[in-house]
Amino acid sequence: MQAINIGLLGLGTVGGGVAQVLRDNAAEISRRLGREVKLSAVCDLNAQRAAELAPQAAFVPSPLELVQRDDVDIVVELFGGTGIAKDVVLKAIENGKHIVTANKKLLAEYGNEIFALAEQKNVMVQFEAAVAGGIPIIKALREGLAANQIKSIAGIINGTSNFILTEMREKGSAFADVLAEAQRLGYAEADPTFDIKGHDAGHKITIMSALAFGTPVNFGACYLEGISKLDSRDIKYAEELGYRVKLLGITRKTEKGIELRVHPTLIPESRLLANVNGVMNAVRVNADMVGETLYYGAGAGALPTASAVVADLIDISRLITADTENRVPHLAFQPSQVVEQTFVPMDEISSSYYLRVQVADKAGVLGAIASLLAKENVSIEALIQKAVLDNNQAEIVILTHNTIEKNVKAAIKAIEAQDTVSSPVTLIRMETLNG
Amino acid sequence: MQAINIGLLGLGTVGGGVAQVLRDNAAEISRRLGREVKLSAVCDLNAQRAAELAPQAAFVPSPLELVQRDDVDIVVELFGGTGIAKDVVLKAIENGKHIVTANKKLLAEYGNEIFALAEQKNVMVQFEAAVAGGIPIIKALREGLAANQIKSIAGIINGTSNFILTEMREKGSAFADVLAEAQRLGYAEADPTFDIKGHDAGHKITIMSALAFGTPVNFGACYLEGISKLDSRDIKYAEELGYRVKLLGITRKTEKGIELRVHPTLIPESRLLANVNGVMNAVRVNADMVGETLYYGAGAGALPTASAVVADLIDISRLITADTENRVPHLAFQPSQVVEQTFVPMDEISSSYYLRVQVADKAGVLGAIASLLAKENVSIEALIQKAVLDNNQAEIVILTHNTIEKNVKAAIKAIEAQDTVSSPVTLIRMETLNG
Repeated sequence: MQAINIGLLGLGTVGGGVAQVLRDNAAEISRRLGREVKLSAVCDLNAQRAAELAPQAAFVPSPLELVQRDDVDIVVELFGGTGIAKDVVLKAIENGKHIVTANKKLLAEYGNEIFALAEQKNVMVQFEAAVAGGIPIIKALREGLAANQIKSIAGIINGTSNFILTEMREKGSAFADVLAEAQRLGYAEADPTFDIKGHDAGHKITIMSALAFGTPVNFGACYLEGISKLDSRDIKYAEELGYRVKLLGITRKTEKGIELRVHPTLIPESRLLANVNGVMNAVRVNADMVGETLYYGAGAGALPTASAVVADLIDISRLITADTENRVPHLAFQPSQVVEQTFVPMDEISSSYYLRVQVADKAGVLGAIASLLAKENVSIEALIQKAVLDNNQAEIVILTHNTIEKNVKAAIKAIEAQDTVSSPVTLIRMETLNG
Repeated sequence: MQAINIGLLGLGTVGGGVAQVLRDNAAEISRRLGREVKLSAVCDLNAQRAAELAPQAAFVPSPLELVQRDDVDIVVELFGGTGIAKDVVLKAIENGKHIVTANKKLLAEYGNEIFALAEQKNVMVQFEAAVAGGIPIIKALREGLAANQIKSIAGIINGTSNFILTEMREKGSAFADVLAEAQRLGYAEADPTFDIKGHDAGHKITIMSALAFGTPVNFGACYLEGISKLDSRDIKYAEELGYRVKLLGITRKTEKGIELRVHPTLIPESRLLANVNGVMNAVRVNADMVGETLYYGAGAGALPTASAVVADLIDISRLITADTENRVPHLAFQPSQVVEQTFVPMDEISSSYYLRVQVADKAGVLGAIASLLAKENVSIEALIQKAVLDNNQAEIVILTHNTIEKNVKAAIKAIEAQDTVSSPVTLIRMETLNG
């Protein structure tokens, strides 16, 4: 059978990995696919690097030229971002090229436009590498669980944040110190904003939410709260209560609409997700027929991400001659069935909460706080008073039962207005991962 | 688009689940697939049950008649076993019907014959439900990890055994007592041999081994050792040493050939696999590019298994009009590339070991045992003497470093021949799950 010709945009970490996988596992890939997957053209700012990593491929300095070449069947976009990457992807689709991309930002923010053009031009856009690196979670959501109604997804999908949280827990270190260490080890970027503020996880959970519920991608609906304000004390207190703190991307179908959010979350330590440590990723899916399934693996890195890119290349190669009827839809559901749905504002979500606050250590203070919570219909599951601090100050840690976020926010406002309360209230959401 | 017509053989637990999924999630499935998946004919010994579970389908008392009907595109075989199921599957393939089956025994023992006929007749045989129930592990191995050379697979793939081991650990109960409880709860069959002796796990790891390494299925090459001889003392001692005991199916490519085996195994308690409890299943795959990935979920039950069956129905429905070139091969590799390979005899496998033996509590006994191990090149990682028993007897627990099984067996033979040794040596293999 004829070889499939690949045009590769970007030979950085992941691009180099793709070149390596296609070279080192060429025989294995041909044994599976029945034909060769050939790197025929590459584009990179660095011609020297391109010559080293992909000596057999044509070097094409212009990305817009690469995506029009006759010897390119599938374009692999690894530039990242939404500038040139967007223009080039749209141009490639215009030219009838199939697309494989690891660009979560591009898809979360411009996916609807890209998929619409792809339908029109009859090409496939695959993006396994955009979510959770080498873990085949997109395939699981689109194909493996296709018999189910998905109920919820909760994922550890940012390795940098998970590494920092793991170190904070194991060593009791402060956020800033661990971040510096992560940067030294190469687990965090020089500008780590994108990871630690939750944007990266937000892009990924936005994509998974669309696949799960058959909606257009809607990054604007995603609530983002990263780990940069976490105090290692809260991680320690959570642990004493039997919980671990993880940055989760969460999406869930409720009667009010779809919840879509990223924030630090307490989860019971017995859950598998609580035991996913370091830079590893894991995604838990709850679906009506299969129940709970979980997918674990490396969420980043050259070769794991390349593993996902090349799996997509193999998938497309199998279907390149097939009519659209035989393809798995981009967003899991047939384009006509991708429908807008309500997203639930953060104030209306239902959760239980971990609260911590510093108060004057005297009679009646605890009772007053409990009353203020009760007044907003927030009931207390557990309350512990931590060691008394200087100046007759004590620290109170509260776990609430399930309630509506706006009620907790109202109670917090009232608590913070008390004379006897001497710090803002720290709030961390909790998920039991039962449902 | 035209509906896909399903003929269902067997309306027991899983068959009832398939009928329910196709009914309850009909709208969701059509939204994804773009066409209806319709239960058009069913065959069961119990006509009454068929009328209740699938009232819209034609009741066909003869399975051989069902697989010849014009209104059946895909046959779902849920009879189980290798008697009538084998005849009917072969007959269906002869008649050009595609097959979905949950029958691990049939595929592990007669898969080569079935797949060969399917190639010849140009039909698909899908079997996601045959391994680990609702977990899409077959899809992950065949498609999600297709860019990789698989190095090893280790799986908790028998829920009954895992339930029993979990209970033995948590409650310290004896095997027989927990088995009785499992039978009462419906987690174990009245005749549990198939589960607790390792056959069921053996069938599943045999199938995964073929998919991973591109060999024909070879159940005869699989070493089987179940959990029925496990003593809860060993589970307790293992835990004191930081390990959990799990029944693992293991397959691994080594320089000597392919290892394929099922046996109780010590694994470090920090591994995710060690924390898979109750009837849940999980499969860990180690592959050259993506590294370690893990897949977790319900390994049995009507609806989880039906989730996998219906996912296969959807996959086939997408490709039913496609040429064979576009299909994922049955055993992951192109038929011409499925090649015989050497399987490693158990004596030649490399592992570390947990050994327990009862000895006379007197000077020199420990030294003698250590010498006998050293003589066979078995080096000791840890050795603990457990509480002294009656009659001046002590119990010795040893963890060895990695060694060849025949060396350990030879050392055990020598140890058991000692006058001071008063029990057979208990041996449990250990896997660090590092590689």
